[in-house]
Amino acid sequence: MVLQEVLVAGKWRNSKNPVGTFNTINPAAKTELPESYPVSSLEEVLEVIEAGKKAADIMRSISPGKIADFLDKFAENIEARTEELVKLANIETALPKEPRLRSSELPRTIDQLHQAASAARERSWCHAVIDTKSNIHSMYGALGGPVVVFGPNNFPFAFNSVAGGDFAAAIAAGNPVIAKANPGHAGTTKILAEAALEAVISSGLPESTVQLIYRTKPDVGLQLVSHPFIGATGFTGGRAGGLKLKEAADKAGKPIYLEMSSVNPIFILPGALNERLDAIAAELYGSCSLGAGQFCTNPGLLIIEKNTGGENFIHTLAKLFGENKPGTLLSSSGPKNIADAIEVLTKAGAEVVVGGKEAEGSGYAFSNTLLKVPGEVFIKNPALLQTEAFGTVSLIITAKNVDQMVEIAKHFEGNLTGCIYSHTGGKDDPAYGKIEPVLRAKVGRLLNDKTPTGVAVVSSMNHGGPYPATGHPGFTAVGIPASMMRFAALHCYDNVRPHRLPEELRAKNPTGKMWRLIDGEWTQKNI
Amino acid sequence: MVLQEVLVAGKWRNSKNPVGTFNTINPAAKTELPESYPVSSLEEVLEVIEAGKKAADIMRSISPGKIADFLDKFAENIEARTEELVKLANIETALPKEPRLRSSELPRTIDQLHQAASAARERSWCHAVIDTKSNIHSMYGALGGPVVVFGPNNFPFAFNSVAGGDFAAAIAAGNPVIAKANPGHAGTTKILAEAALEAVISSGLPESTVQLIYRTKPDVGLQLVSHPFIGATGFTGGRAGGLKLKEAADKAGKPIYLEMSSVNPIFILPGALNERLDAIAAELYGSCSLGAGQFCTNPGLLIIEKNTGGENFIHTLAKLFGENKPGTLLSSSGPKNIADAIEVLTKAGAEVVVGGKEAEGSGYAFSNTLLKVPGEVFIKNPALLQTEAFGTVSLIITAKNVDQMVEIAKHFEGNLTGCIYSHTGGKDDPAYGKIEPVLRAKVGRLLNDKTPTGVAVVSSMNHGGPYPATGHPGFTAVGIPASMMRFAALHCYDNVRPHRLPEELRAKNPTGKMWRLIDGEWTQKNI
Repeated sequence: MVLQEVLVAGKWRNSKNPVGTFNTINPAAKTELPESYPVSSLEEVLEVIEAGKKAADIMRSISPGKIADFLDKFAENIEARTEELVKLANIETALPKEPRLRSSELPRTIDQLHQAASAARERSWCHAVIDTKSNIHSMYGALGGPVVVFGPNNFPFAFNSVAGGDFAAAIAAGNPVIAKANPGHAGTTKILAEAALEAVISSGLPESTVQLIYRTKPDVGLQLVSHPFIGATGFTGGRAGGLKLKEAADKAGKPIYLEMSSVNPIFILPGALNERLDAIAAELYGSCSLGAGQFCTNPGLLIIEKNTGGENFIHTLAKLFGENKPGTLLSSSGPKNIADAIEVLTKAGAEVVVGGKEAEGSGYAFSNTLLKVPGEVFIKNPALLQTEAFGTVSLIITAKNVDQMVEIAKHFEGNLTGCIYSHTGGKDDPAYGKIEPVLRAKVGRLLNDKTPTGVAVVSSMNHGGPYPATGHPGFTAVGIPASMMRFAALHCYDNVRPHRLPEELRAKNPTGKMWRLIDGEWTQKNI
Repeated sequence: MVLQEVLVAGKWRNSKNPVGTFNTINPAAKTELPESYPVSSLEEVLEVIEAGKKAADIMRSISPGKIADFLDKFAENIEARTEELVKLANIETALPKEPRLRSSELPRTIDQLHQAASAARERSWCHAVIDTKSNIHSMYGALGGPVVVFGPNNFPFAFNSVAGGDFAAAIAAGNPVIAKANPGHAGTTKILAEAALEAVISSGLPESTVQLIYRTKPDVGLQLVSHPFIGATGFTGGRAGGLKLKEAADKAGKPIYLEMSSVNPIFILPGALNERLDAIAAELYGSCSLGAGQFCTNPGLLIIEKNTGGENFIHTLAKLFGENKPGTLLSSSGPKNIADAIEVLTKAGAEVVVGGKEAEGSGYAFSNTLLKVPGEVFIKNPALLQTEAFGTVSLIITAKNVDQMVEIAKHFEGNLTGCIYSHTGGKDDPAYGKIEPVLRAKVGRLLNDKTPTGVAVVSSMNHGGPYPATGHPGFTAVGIPASMMRFAALHCYDNVRPHRLPEELRAKNPTGKMWRLIDGEWTQKNI
């Protein structure tokens, strides 16, 4: 059996003494793909860490401009391999080529890399603060060790451990990356790593700036994120795995940023339903079924008032869920995981309105499923009734009145997003005023009259939220430059001689455009 | 026995069913003070948490200006009680009234509160980002739950759980505070809490904005920092206690910011010693003995080259350590803790040059102690040889050459500060160039030719550093507004109707002075 090569210390090579192998699958055909990948040994992981640490040491003396050049070049290399990437990602994930992979996710990924390049080049992200009287200077800088990135299965490009948001942010902040591929799309990740290595070489970055392994035994993963040489870890994936990594990293005092789970509650207030029931139902169905429901921001909880409007809404939405064919799931474990989650929900008091079983067909699929539960039942069993089902599965909570909606919101765990649909004329404003303060504290991104599934890559975005949606409410995984702050340390220079300061802290503004806080005033000027 | 009252939900009252009592001591006289304080029960702590959560909910609708007024008023109240505070703090801690308590620490504390007030009033700290095209807005806001503050024993004012840096930062960011007094200066803390409550009332903040308990059983402390209603915790103190709290908070997904331990290495390069040995020795002795050596930034490790200059330096510094009388320690456990740390150091290979035993006299004291160890011994046993002795105790590491200095630096744990003294003419620049990159990654604040014990309260300060100096390398406990970021969550508003946005994110700049990132440009303008 020929195993695919790993990327270690700037070289593609056979994995040394792999402790296992695995194949990727084609979820649309339920077949195994021919390529086999190694499970890396602890020894290999330690080699990767050593090489990453060396790269981190060298990167400190490499100019941000050069790092930006790498990111731009990498983005171009990806673009040049569009057809190859789209083809393989489609086979490995069953996500549609159009519009999803080719016209949406890949351009977004390329754009993210260019945005990260611009931020690195412009340098305002590092938040330079200079107090001339005390001769103290500070800025955010690289962590001094490589960043480990674990990518999720649901975005083969935009959140890939090579090329995705965490990767772009970590590199732009001056850190090398150790990528742990998502085994679901190992082949796609390998192509991206090839494109990255070419850009590493052509832009003159340290050879170990980007390294790639595909899989490790779980305990080796724990050793990886807690190793003394590691700068930090970015993880996007399921809660169980994320919490184990968090425990190991926390114990070692290593920063870890996790995006783990979210049911993204949506309140649809009575005035809104009365005004535009059909439009809202159609919009929500679209959001719930996007990517076969396998979005971090998928609306898993819908809260409505128990009245005629509410009944009509359930009826309309159930029709959409029932009439439409479910999308193909990302992996062979998808249907079972969804069935398990639905079992938890129903045992906790929810009732299946439509769907609820594995779908027939050539690929892995599960019927679009809508459940409902009365507000008072939810309040009695909120933990189980917030179980995430990773697919087109939503639970409608029917609340007696607005006060019960507030009570429901008080029982939410931390989420990435929360939304309130309300009457355009203001009829729902009193209810909004009661619900919003509770919901605000539970979510990273609060929406009005809009589904949460589109995560715009803009500076104001927050793709984060309170635990257990993530591990810390102050950081975002999307939105540059804010996402870079996860992979930076605060570096203060006290009485350090001027020629020894980093360029960003010297008298002359190094880019002429960089914003710095000098003696309490934000300015682009020199001192 | 009359117990001192706790401050719960805006009322001074007797502790309910305390689970123990304790008295403060006068360390200069080795006597117990007459005041007794309660150890709060879990029931009482839960009551405090409930009240704190209510205050957090109310504070969201209170204007930053009102919060700023509270901070200013509180600072004024403290100033008005200067004599009383200085007198009691001196009795409880043995820190000198002049210049330390009256002319240095108290003015600094008052200044910190005013700085926090200015930051809250001006609002730039919240980092408002507006993308008009996508109609997405974001800013940092309060956590939605109270912040717990554990104060250390060594700064009865400036790091007090009421009035200190964590307190000021948490309140300025819009959070109520649950203060856990340091039992060493419970009386001083009570006066500060009285002054705080008066300011809470006169400025119209929620009654539970500031609450005070003195002590809990250890397991109740763990429940406090991990309670679902808690926003975050700020802790300054010893490593053992800090790590236990960290474990509990981490497990619950609650942010915790710790300042735990640091030996603050100082490299004194050969050219510098050759040039100004006596001046450096005098400066270092001053820094090492400041506050009887009980500073977080106390220089515990001095690294020199093993040569004639180095020998002379040891001789000169040992003379200063030996000739001067040690200061009084903060607590009865001080001498024992120092003796224990010295035993660890000597067992690990260090040799006592001068001092090494408890000092005679009326107060708790330990002789100024200088130790030395060869570089190769340090490298073999770095963990034990970085044991912190909380007093005037420093370990000199004699390095064979500059390369060994670099090797020594590679073995450092994370520290708050690190310093390099070098020749003013540049003779040490090659050595500096080798050591600095390694040291930079290990410390929060890097100094040149300056002792680390003065922590200026300026925006560029970083009183933080990599683990185990703190729990996260990206945050600082001193320096406004950066210190406020620890107690804030990132709040994004996506398509939220304009009248529902917080003032900071509306078209009109609410202060006219607040800096906002609007469509990629930092500006003070309206939209």
